[in-house]
Amino acid sequence: MSAQIASDEPILIREEREGVVTLTLNRPRQYNALSEEMLEALQQNLDELAVDESVRCVVIAAAGKAFCAGHDLKQMRSNPRQEYYEDLFRRCGRVMQSIVNLPIPVIARVQGMATAAGCQLVASCDLAVAAESATFAVSGINVGLFCSTPAVALSRNVAPKQAFEMLVTGRFISAAEALSYGLINRVAADAELGAAVASLTSDICSKSPVAIRTGKAMFSRQRSMSLEEAYAYAGQVMACNMMAEDAAEGIDAFIGKRKPVWKGR
Amino acid sequence: MSAQIASDEPILIREEREGVVTLTLNRPRQYNALSEEMLEALQQNLDELAVDESVRCVVIAAAGKAFCAGHDLKQMRSNPRQEYYEDLFRRCGRVMQSIVNLPIPVIARVQGMATAAGCQLVASCDLAVAAESATFAVSGINVGLFCSTPAVALSRNVAPKQAFEMLVTGRFISAAEALSYGLINRVAADAELGAAVASLTSDICSKSPVAIRTGKAMFSRQRSMSLEEAYAYAGQVMACNMMAEDAAEGIDAFIGKRKPVWKGR
Amino acid sequence: MSAQIASDEPILIREEREGVVTLTLNRPRQYNALSEEMLEALQQNLDELAVDESVRCVVIAAAGKAFCAGHDLKQMRSNPRQEYYEDLFRRCGRVMQSIVNLPIPVIARVQGMATAAGCQLVASCDLAVAAESATFAVSGINVGLFCSTPAVALSRNVAPKQAFEMLVTGRFISAAEALSYGLINRVAADAELGAAVASLTSDICSKSPVAIRTGKAMFSRQRSMSLEEAYAYAGQVMACNMMAEDAAEGIDAFIGKRKPVWKGR
Repeated sequence: MSAQIASDEPILIREEREGVVTLTLNRPRQYNALSEEMLEALQQNLDELAVDESVRCVVIAAAGKAFCAGHDLKQMRSNPRQEYYEDLFRRCGRVMQSIVNLPIPVIARVQGMATAAGCQLVASCDLAVAAESATFAVSGINVGLFCSTPAVALSRNVAPKQAFEMLVTGRFISAAEALSYGLINRVAADAELGAAVASLTSDICSKSPVAIRTGKAMFSRQRSMSLEEAYAYAGQVMACNMMAEDAAEGIDAFIGKRKPVWKGR
Repeated sequence: MSAQIASDEPILIREEREGVVTLTLNRPRQYNALSEEMLEALQQNLDELAVDESVRCVVIAAAGKAFCAGHDLKQMRSNPRQEYYEDLFRRCGRVMQSIVNLPIPVIARVQGMATAAGCQLVASCDLAVAAESATFAVSGINVGLFCSTPAVALSRNVAPKQAFEMLVTGRFISAAEALSYGLINRVAADAELGAAVASLTSDICSKSPVAIRTGKAMFSRQRSMSLEEAYAYAGQVMACNMMAEDAAEGIDAFIGKRKPVWKGR
Repeated sequence: MSAQIASDEPILIREEREGVVTLTLNRPRQYNALSEEMLEALQQNLDELAVDESVRCVVIAAAGKAFCAGHDLKQMRSNPRQEYYEDLFRRCGRVMQSIVNLPIPVIARVQGMATAAGCQLVASCDLAVAAESATFAVSGINVGLFCSTPAVALSRNVAPKQAFEMLVTGRFISAAEALSYGLINRVAADAELGAAVASLTSDICSKSPVAIRTGKAMFSRQRSMSLEEAYAYAGQVMACNMMAEDAAEGIDAFIGKRKPVWKGR
């Protein structure tokens, strides 16, 4: 009976509260595996969020005991064609890049295990908060499948020797190790995970929307530039930001020792 | 009276002792904000140091309670034109790149707070030593201005999730955190900050000048190259270094178990 | 007499056991310096290993008290010509890049000191395990020779301020520090070094050969690509990996809750 009810639920739940959209992966019995349908649902939501100016930040959360166990291995094995896999990884990579390119911050809220493409999802988010019992692995190597696409995200967050060790051993690391590796930002007691994420989202929501959007867009773009290009680009971006009403208000409030009132532009 | 005396002092004090030039930001009551005048003074000194073969290393220090609070917000608000800001950030970026491109090591000596462009200044130096009570933030976000140009320097020193969190929250981190993030090299007890910097500068001054200059120039250049290009370039540089008198002297002294006497060429 | 026997031994010992090739630097009285002959022996072995499909992983070990003290300074000083040095560093860089490009994982097994090009050798390996008493330095600066080619490998593993400090001070860091810097993967009690390396090699040997080779080849290649290029490349690689018999076997075994039997293709 409860199984029947569960299957009627959407595989991705979208909730919005005070500018924070939470996307909850909702296939708990499949450890929220990234099936074709889950990737499609994520992509659609990210595409909508990319043009929704009312949203301030996004949380990617997960129902049940695990955050995300990566791709749906049963579905993959039932489509044993190279073109199918190429298309699948292309679509998965598009979801990950849509997170990077979204004009607002994306936060991973991690409990339980985040493995393979689930670990990639954590790495792809701008920020990540984990329960202290959470574990992380790029464990495809254990089933004969090196986590090549997860390696793209992982190696852009974690030092090369640590990333490569995780990839060739499939070893699970703790939340504390993930923090020391730079894979996540904060560790919370399991019972405090929701509060730790809420603290971060409310902090972000207290800032000027135009400044946060400015920052999200410029941050990842400048990373691949030379120092000289990056400074030329960042100086341009920051001069535009200075012309926004919020910067004038924020600085005047700071000088006047009062609280700023953001107009969002 | 003392205010009058203070305003007659230069905004940037240059001192030289045994090959170490210390540039001290000297607007303590403005938390050493990087006004147009301060940027101009820094640029002029860096330009002179770039061609002064007698100098061995540079320390960027600060007078008063704070290291540097970033741009001068009052001055910025009194020039509300996009071209003004573009020019200001272009000049600030030029100062930061002049530090990176200076042929000798530059060390930040940090007490108190280093915020926004002040934190960028720390990140832009080759090395940084901080008092244990020092704090670091890229706090422009609190006034509606995302620290875009500081992000360029910060993200080239600190892992992406940690850098982005600092940028969107404006959170102050301690010297101990800054050390674990890779933003600084050493933390000293507050009363020992001067001694800790002196220990580092005297260590650098005890090395061969030609070897130190070789290293400073090659280090940042090779970072943006492919592995193959970097090895071709570094091999060339190191072969030249081997032909210097100091390398011959250094190796002969090492083999002969005696102290080398550098000729500086 | 024993000296005579020692000199008859090869400077590089190759041993193979159950798919693990150990290359042991064997000039213990010269702290395993990378003479022309040692570089030549390493290059020849790496070239052979690159086309040997039976080997699963490589350990670079060292005889005696030290891991490797870098270049052979006496030999260098007896050939004081720029072309000689250019050729020497070109050949050394080729050895280091052959490690990076080898299609199987390479593990450094470090006891005692790893200095200059010896530290570069550790940085160039995919993984590194060190005895807790091991020390690391890029100490060329002490003999008037900035470690330019070691800097290439070091700065691709260690944060820039930490790498630069090591390079300009020549300071020795402990195994614990090397671990926190990301220069090595694991620290073992001195008496447990062999066991710690064996644990890592047996872990790697328990995985599918095709998956490990896939991962080694893709990991370093994708690091220099843009995010978009890297995902396109990694998706292609991973789709090929999915078509291997081992991936089918591995996933079926995982779904069937049994141990996989790798065919190696």
